[in-house]
Amino acid sequence: MKKHNYSAGPCILPQEVFEKSAQAILNFNNLDLSILEISHRSKDFVTVMEEARALVLELLGLEGKGYQALFLHGGASLEFLMVPYNLMKDNGKAAYLDTGTWASGAIKEAKYFGETVTVASSKAENYTHIPKDFTVPSDADYFHCTSNNTIFGTQMKSFPQLHIPIVCDMSSDIFSRSLDFSKFDLIYAGAQKNMGPAGTTLVVVKEEILGKTGRHIPSMLDYQQHIIKESMYNTPPVFPIYASLLTLQWLKKSGGIPAMEKINEAKAALLYAEIDRNPLFTGTAAKEDRSVMNATFVLNDEKHTETFDKIWKAAGISGLTGHRSVGGYRASMYNALPLESVQVLVEAMKELESSIS
Amino acid sequence: MKKHNYSAGPCILPQEVFEKSAQAILNFNNLDLSILEISHRSKDFVTVMEEARALVLELLGLEGKGYQALFLHGGASLEFLMVPYNLMKDNGKAAYLDTGTWASGAIKEAKYFGETVTVASSKAENYTHIPKDFTVPSDADYFHCTSNNTIFGTQMKSFPQLHIPIVCDMSSDIFSRSLDFSKFDLIYAGAQKNMGPAGTTLVVVKEEILGKTGRHIPSMLDYQQHIIKESMYNTPPVFPIYASLLTLQWLKKSGGIPAMEKINEAKAALLYAEIDRNPLFTGTAAKEDRSVMNATFVLNDEKHTETFDKIWKAAGISGLTGHRSVGGYRASMYNALPLESVQVLVEAMKELESSIS
Repeated sequence: MKKHNYSAGPCILPQEVFEKSAQAILNFNNLDLSILEISHRSKDFVTVMEEARALVLELLGLEGKGYQALFLHGGASLEFLMVPYNLMKDNGKAAYLDTGTWASGAIKEAKYFGETVTVASSKAENYTHIPKDFTVPSDADYFHCTSNNTIFGTQMKSFPQLHIPIVCDMSSDIFSRSLDFSKFDLIYAGAQKNMGPAGTTLVVVKEEILGKTGRHIPSMLDYQQHIIKESMYNTPPVFPIYASLLTLQWLKKSGGIPAMEKINEAKAALLYAEIDRNPLFTGTAAKEDRSVMNATFVLNDEKHTETFDKIWKAAGISGLTGHRSVGGYRASMYNALPLESVQVLVEAMKELESSIS
Repeated sequence: MKKHNYSAGPCILPQEVFEKSAQAILNFNNLDLSILEISHRSKDFVTVMEEARALVLELLGLEGKGYQALFLHGGASLEFLMVPYNLMKDNGKAAYLDTGTWASGAIKEAKYFGETVTVASSKAENYTHIPKDFTVPSDADYFHCTSNNTIFGTQMKSFPQLHIPIVCDMSSDIFSRSLDFSKFDLIYAGAQKNMGPAGTTLVVVKEEILGKTGRHIPSMLDYQQHIIKESMYNTPPVFPIYASLLTLQWLKKSGGIPAMEKINEAKAALLYAEIDRNPLFTGTAAKEDRSVMNATFVLNDEKHTETFDKIWKAAGISGLTGHRSVGGYRASMYNALPLESVQVLVEAMKELESSIS
């Protein structure tokens, strides 16, 4: 029996990605070689890289608009550093919106590069909402935000219109909803939510914003170097990129981002309706900022914890435990999670209600 | 038919690593979940990380000697930058031995951190040998060398005795030969030769050399941060680390480094004997510096290229083409390459000789 996997990331991927990638480890493209043992400069892997980079731009609607897609090492946390290295001028200034743990981590790294203005923060309210009223200094080199906050279950529903580059960490909701991605100048995302397994990071960058800082950038941290080398400055994380390509192919075949958005909204609507209806539970995020990807909720009375945990585990659910910063439960409903899994969770919540009334 | 895979890296891994890792993608540890979809904080993956880190120290004979093993992102190229960030003092000095493309890449990155002295270089001779007579400044913060040069087929057979920390890039020969690893203070290696698939980098560091630079180090580049977080500062490259653990387990079961060294020497002796005997071929590296891992050789008369390429390809050999910097052929004989594959290559070289005489 396959589990209903609510893990916050690394997380569920489409079953066909597991099957095809396992097969490629045994014999890739009928080469009688494993994908793990071929040169990254081989025709077969160069094709994987080219397809993956092109498919990202196609799915985001950014083809022919001056963007480059890169599959890098390091996770989004390395981008916290690469963004100011590449975009903040010597003696420059950057503007950040603080909506949670990851946004705050990005701010911490940027501070060592120059003046880093936090335009707004919901930290004092344990990040239960997204700050709405803020002003971005027009002389900042860029504005940085985090589109979805996995830990706190909040998601930005709109983005400011600015005359400076907009950088967005979309690690936990990229490819999950339709946005005008051309409004962003740099998007980055760790693969391990909607794009693939852990071990690679997607960077989508508008080339024209690069090369303007007057700052020396170490080669491995320089987006321009990675663009020149076609995302193979050094040996790339071959398998994570291949599994990402398989996930992107599944996404395209499934109808692309608009189709995902529709299913994701149906899943979130179903779960939030139960959270709001069921007298035993309360959602922790402000309603207008609720994330379609990660629903955070708590039991109103912790004494039911043991019973509820037994019920959902017996139903084949895994990965529902909330992050220690919030407690309670977190249901991560990434693209590959089927609606059926949400139905099973809703049934488990109802079963708890029946069992104690 | 399985290929005789001479790829320089990513390269051949033990067959059981392919089989077990493919199985883990379908169902890991009988969890009814894929290794690609579980949390890196789950008990099952934390165990993988702990075992892999401990096994590295055990295999290198470094247990209880003040070392930490880390599985990081980024490839060895990121270490080119992390090493000076962590070890070169503000206004400090570092000493580098230039033995090839990767050593030279490491020097390039270090130069931006402070005075970087190249103690010797064989660049003028296209890196066909390892410089032997050099003096390392005693006031340098560290000495950096590259133990094996994949591209040029040379390998350091001895290392200097110094009173400053010794840093060694062992990407292409770690776990292949017995050395007193405690003579090194920091060893790093991209996984994709003897340790696993591409996508993770091993760093083995003596803790006492860290924290002495007076320099601010960005979190993701700070070895001390990675040590504190037990090699999980951020989401690690889960699958590459798991496949590395499987490779390390195979290595231990096969007799550890001493057993590998014996087989590797037998493979290299067999191939170099044929290169020296066969009048059609010449080795490109100085004999005393020949690499046990990568044998580089050329046809004395290029007109035989087409015939020879047909012969080895027909014998099921792949990945034998030399790097563009040297031309000719490169036979990479990493730990997982069986002696039988070298016998097949030697036969192919003999077949060429017969076919034209």
